[in-house]
Amino acid sequence: MKTTNFRIAIIGSGAIGSYYGAKLAYGGSDVHFLTRSDLSEIRSNGLSVRGKGENFRVTNVNCYNSTRKIGASDLVLIAVKATSNADLVDLIPPLLHEHTVLLTLQNGLGNEEFLAKNFGVDRVLGGLCFICLSRISRTEVERYDYGHIVIGEYRRKPQSRTHDVAAEFKRGGIQCNVIENLALERWRKLVWNIPFNGLSILAGGIDTAAILHDEGLRRTTLGLMDEVIGAANRCGYPLEHSAAYEQMKRTETMGAYKPSTLLDWEAGRPLEIEGIWGEPLRRATAAGANMPRLEIVYTLLKSLGEAERKKRTAAKRG
Amino acid sequence: MKTTNFRIAIIGSGAIGSYYGAKLAYGGSDVHFLTRSDLSEIRSNGLSVRGKGENFRVTNVNCYNSTRKIGASDLVLIAVKATSNADLVDLIPPLLHEHTVLLTLQNGLGNEEFLAKNFGVDRVLGGLCFICLSRISRTEVERYDYGHIVIGEYRRKPQSRTHDVAAEFKRGGIQCNVIENLALERWRKLVWNIPFNGLSILAGGIDTAAILHDEGLRRTTLGLMDEVIGAANRCGYPLEHSAAYEQMKRTETMGAYKPSTLLDWEAGRPLEIEGIWGEPLRRATAAGANMPRLEIVYTLLKSLGEAERKKRTAAKRG
Repeated sequence: MKTTNFRIAIIGSGAIGSYYGAKLAYGGSDVHFLTRSDLSEIRSNGLSVRGKGENFRVTNVNCYNSTRKIGASDLVLIAVKATSNADLVDLIPPLLHEHTVLLTLQNGLGNEEFLAKNFGVDRVLGGLCFICLSRISRTEVERYDYGHIVIGEYRRKPQSRTHDVAAEFKRGGIQCNVIENLALERWRKLVWNIPFNGLSILAGGIDTAAILHDEGLRRTTLGLMDEVIGAANRCGYPLEHSAAYEQMKRTETMGAYKPSTLLDWEAGRPLEIEGIWGEPLRRATAAGANMPRLEIVYTLLKSLGEAERKKRTAAKRG
Repeated sequence: MKTTNFRIAIIGSGAIGSYYGAKLAYGGSDVHFLTRSDLSEIRSNGLSVRGKGENFRVTNVNCYNSTRKIGASDLVLIAVKATSNADLVDLIPPLLHEHTVLLTLQNGLGNEEFLAKNFGVDRVLGGLCFICLSRISRTEVERYDYGHIVIGEYRRKPQSRTHDVAAEFKRGGIQCNVIENLALERWRKLVWNIPFNGLSILAGGIDTAAILHDEGLRRTTLGLMDEVIGAANRCGYPLEHSAAYEQMKRTETMGAYKPSTLLDWEAGRPLEIEGIWGEPLRRATAAGANMPRLEIVYTLLKSLGEAERKKRTAAKRG
């Protein structure tokens, strides 16, 4: 992989793909977007980012309706919903040369494994995005808070290429840190996502401030966090119990924030239920952990998702 | 209390009050209904019961818009939602003579205590209704299955009056058994109500057959049942663990049934959250039981109820 002028392909033009792709392009990187229904609008209007002190627009965006038109790339950022992972089997091959790196910015567990299985373990990096943002139109993203990324190698220590990728992000003005243990950090992020993303939907569509304000939901959040921390440790990732306290404190300073899964739910988009709830539960159970709270949250989200899917299918027919 | 020709007052004209009141009246008992908005329709059309081999109408129903017009009664059947219990403080006194018996047919825990505190412990009986039914109009009730009642004294063994009340029910064609330990039977019924009533709402509005059909919901149901049985034992009620298995088997033969709380939820009526989930959780916790599943179900139902209440208030304003 070349250390400068990466050819970067962005797969997934939701909030995450649009934001980080626009930042990289604005910083001068050689960025190429796979876009589908949004192609002509992005060609006409570019991509705009605003909020939290940022306000810029990238024009002349390189966007394509096929990865064959993007061709061999050095770095592929994967930012599709995990529910669309099956599409990647066809989308990614045209982007590959011998040293192409695949960096998944998706949530939850199982995405690195999916890429490793289909495209080879050595290509895979994982990234965790700490950001509150929302795509407010096909060409506009609003950032509410944070923005940094941490990246790590799948199942090995950082390599020199890991630092190269981080440097490319930094060049685009994105705070990016290289981490030693990607799986540990994925579990640490789940300590937040499992309770807040899940309860925000199950409790009737409420934000983080409303969850923290309700004594029962607060206790349930802490109970879920304890389960996740215990499970991580059982799975061999030494996550300290103070992580729960730290994340509660951090959430209190965030204000009223709607987790990404709640935004997906409200917009009628599919939910990443397996990556955030299902796969952690399965791994923890296999390791002998008891997670009654996670089990019920996972089960209810799956049922709700299924009920919603049926309603929508019926509405289309009706 | 007289042993024949009880003067019976029925407080609450939902499905339970209408059904048992109509049965008693049809059987020749001296029944007097407190009705509010339904008064003129019941006076015109009587009360009809149908379904499961029953099909009858009671005409010339004694109904009143005030308990003062009913006056002193021997037996008061209480079938209002527990969320309206505060109204009973004013409604009941006009019905009382020295030996008036108050029989609550309400769900969950805390209703006998409420009556005992306000009207004296010696007056209080509790009944559990095993029945699948729905009020399909202001004057019609449809029964889908079962129908029997068990009744017991609050905090003491059955008295001769307990058997007198049971005999009155039987005279109306209602299967009625006297139980030794009312509190134990309340916990036994919660083994069913806590999972099925709760999950039917939280999983997106699904019936008992759909719950049993889903592996995760089935496991969650069993997990909740185990918690409730454990809690009952901690609280001093020797509920055998096979109760879970028995209730699952029974539910499998019931067909697709919507629990009463789901019907309430769909109709926008208030939910008896405290009696079915809140009070059992509080008692169990005070006795040292750990009920993570019940805690999360209770918390989510409360939040959903609150979110729904706010939506409705906003809709009324808008």
